[in-house]
Amino acid sequence: MRIFVLNTGSELLLGDVRDAHLSFIAQQILELGLLVSEQRTVGDGSAIGTTLAAIFPQADLVFVTGGLGPTSDDITRDLVAELLGLSLERDQEVFAAINERLSFRRIGVTESIQRQAQVPHGAQVLPNRFGTAPGLFLRAGISPAIPSPHLFLLPGPPRELQPMFTEFVMSLLRKIVRPADIVRRLYKIANMGESVVETRVGAKLLAISGLEVGYCARPGEVDLRLVGRQEIVDQGEKIVLESLGRFIFTQGTETIEEKIVESLIRAKRSLVIAESCTGGLLANRVTDVPGASEIFLAGYVTYSNDAKNDILGVDKDLIARLGAVSVEVAEAMADGARKRAGAFYALSTTGIAGPAGGSAEKPVGTVFVALSSANSATTTKKFFFPTDRGTFKQMVAQAAFEMLRTAIGEL
Amino acid sequence: MRIFVLNTGSELLLGDVRDAHLSFIAQQILELGLLVSEQRTVGDGSAIGTTLAAIFPQADLVFVTGGLGPTSDDITRDLVAELLGLSLERDQEVFAAINERLSFRRIGVTESIQRQAQVPHGAQVLPNRFGTAPGLFLRAGISPAIPSPHLFLLPGPPRELQPMFTEFVMSLLRKIVRPADIVRRLYKIANMGESVVETRVGAKLLAISGLEVGYCARPGEVDLRLVGRQEIVDQGEKIVLESLGRFIFTQGTETIEEKIVESLIRAKRSLVIAESCTGGLLANRVTDVPGASEIFLAGYVTYSNDAKNDILGVDKDLIARLGAVSVEVAEAMADGARKRAGAFYALSTTGIAGPAGGSAEKPVGTVFVALSSANSATTTKKFFFPTDRGTFKQMVAQAAFEMLRTAIGEL
Repeated sequence: MRIFVLNTGSELLLGDVRDAHLSFIAQQILELGLLVSEQRTVGDGSAIGTTLAAIFPQADLVFVTGGLGPTSDDITRDLVAELLGLSLERDQEVFAAINERLSFRRIGVTESIQRQAQVPHGAQVLPNRFGTAPGLFLRAGISPAIPSPHLFLLPGPPRELQPMFTEFVMSLLRKIVRPADIVRRLYKIANMGESVVETRVGAKLLAISGLEVGYCARPGEVDLRLVGRQEIVDQGEKIVLESLGRFIFTQGTETIEEKIVESLIRAKRSLVIAESCTGGLLANRVTDVPGASEIFLAGYVTYSNDAKNDILGVDKDLIARLGAVSVEVAEAMADGARKRAGAFYALSTTGIAGPAGGSAEKPVGTVFVALSSANSATTTKKFFFPTDRGTFKQMVAQAAFEMLRTAIGEL
Repeated sequence: MRIFVLNTGSELLLGDVRDAHLSFIAQQILELGLLVSEQRTVGDGSAIGTTLAAIFPQADLVFVTGGLGPTSDDITRDLVAELLGLSLERDQEVFAAINERLSFRRIGVTESIQRQAQVPHGAQVLPNRFGTAPGLFLRAGISPAIPSPHLFLLPGPPRELQPMFTEFVMSLLRKIVRPADIVRRLYKIANMGESVVETRVGAKLLAISGLEVGYCARPGEVDLRLVGRQEIVDQGEKIVLESLGRFIFTQGTETIEEKIVESLIRAKRSLVIAESCTGGLLANRVTDVPGASEIFLAGYVTYSNDAKNDILGVDKDLIARLGAVSVEVAEAMADGARKRAGAFYALSTTGIAGPAGGSAEKPVGTVFVALSSANSATTTKKFFFPTDRGTFKQMVAQAAFEMLRTAIGEL
């Protein structure tokens, strides 16, 4: 099955916004054994029609995102109706839903908002629980004018598209497609380089015929991916687990913080975080996980030395003598945070994110991460991540989470 | 000038990673008046060659990202050399740079890493300061085999591509292209809905012929965009500034936290942040800004009620009587944080992010944001953002930052 994703919107080509749809749609349809063949982005306007006309003969299924909203640049609905030779008709149910939604949020109904109730003849409406623009499904062969594949028109905002996809698009897809026997497995490893991962498993995996192997490196994380027929992927998985087993934090799509929160809830152990150079990133990532409040007590972003002393009780003389970026201060931060919050575990970070603040002895990228726990001695590790500020923060977070994950696992 | 961006990598089509290149490249080349016509994503493998062959006749300039690294799925270099009929030769300078870089990071040089020193005959090397794979520039007409446009091959990791682009690609582009007279202006507004923004300016802007108007809605932010010839955009800007002036936090590409850090440094005023429902997001965003340490003293992520009492001195009875999500607690958090850190400004957030924790009186999405300052009374605002957890956190952050921005502006 040849599947295309077409993202529309000048804001994408102008660089004002980053696409989030391809990755979401790809992950969803993979559950049905479906793979995206190609993705394209075009601007608002006539390019949508030209590109669809070019894609149609090559495609069995097309997802179009964006251009369904109320503003004047939202013309996907009109262009598709024109291309397929279908008339637009007001859908009374959609119209009522729009009115109800807007009155709940106390917003007036304008003429432009009402355009969203126009539906191409024969199209199926996909309700939008988080916005006014409904999605549309136009089955293959719907057009009296030209041959067309299955076509989904979906709203641009991810918070509208995503629930619509899981609730309505997936069940329609299950009716349309035959399940394929392609499987995809993912193995996520924190705080290990891409080339180190490949050295451990690369040659052995390459030797398996019919196995597609992929590596995706992100700051502080490598995602190793195997794609192929079930029995082929099983062969590959054996090698991966033998060589990398204990370093793999998930074989699913979860983040390392999701695994940590899940483990802590199961073990009924609480966490506090004391951050300097990561500036709240660790706390933010932990609290992105629903249910985090069950185990996460507090985060202390002690950016200034005064705050390290005031909140965490780190000795001012210690900071003056050894510097805030030191083994001893990292340890004192973790211990201080753990005692203050009465938590089982405490993580701390202190380092030099840059661009300024480095020295010959402690260059930009130097960082200490400490883990204090109620049942074993405090451990501190030194890392060196000479990179940009954002990547540095992410790499430190991954290293810290991996230390905690290992400690929980050793229970 | 017809410009294409081609992203390669099965990890993109499988949804394991989101593209960051299109937005970056688009923003960069817009400085030269250049617009991306179309973007495509294909997997690793032969699709790269087929797609390039299809794009070449339509394009004057093509950026290819990804597939230059050391692993077995990195074959862009080879496919392009084959397509253009160019031999691959080892570049001694690149080879030496790879060896030096790896020895600095104490990593061994494998055969696969050395492949990255292979350069198509006649191509210009673009140094990579943050990785081993260099970029390549192949000028239009370089191929003895087929007509080809200007072609840039760039590494996949954003932390490698981005510095390479600003340092080397931009200066090459300045030699290749004639400056165009298209300008793009951006106006970013926090904590106001897309349809509210359009109601204020939409009809008037639409009446200007030759002006392209775009709206990009993100959580808690609308980016309004005008594109067109200089004098046309100037007409549009007049309308935008008259109707939305004081709500616009930047006419550049900065984030609202960048504007805030910049203003606070200029005013020599310090900031502390006390967060409950946003869980460290505000502190994290503020500390993403280089130089934040000059004005940011501390962040207290007081997730538990105990922490609100212990760190911020919020009265336990107050929490028991009115609930942690209340005007009074928000206010006490901000005041307590400001006094504790000795800061000029304090922001606090307390709300119900969901999915659990809502009630009839205070449903999921309810949130209070307070601003305490050294020179005026503490103000608290109530918001209602009934959405998913991640969007909720971002919307609260935008609302809080907008309160602070307005307060600083009123000085």
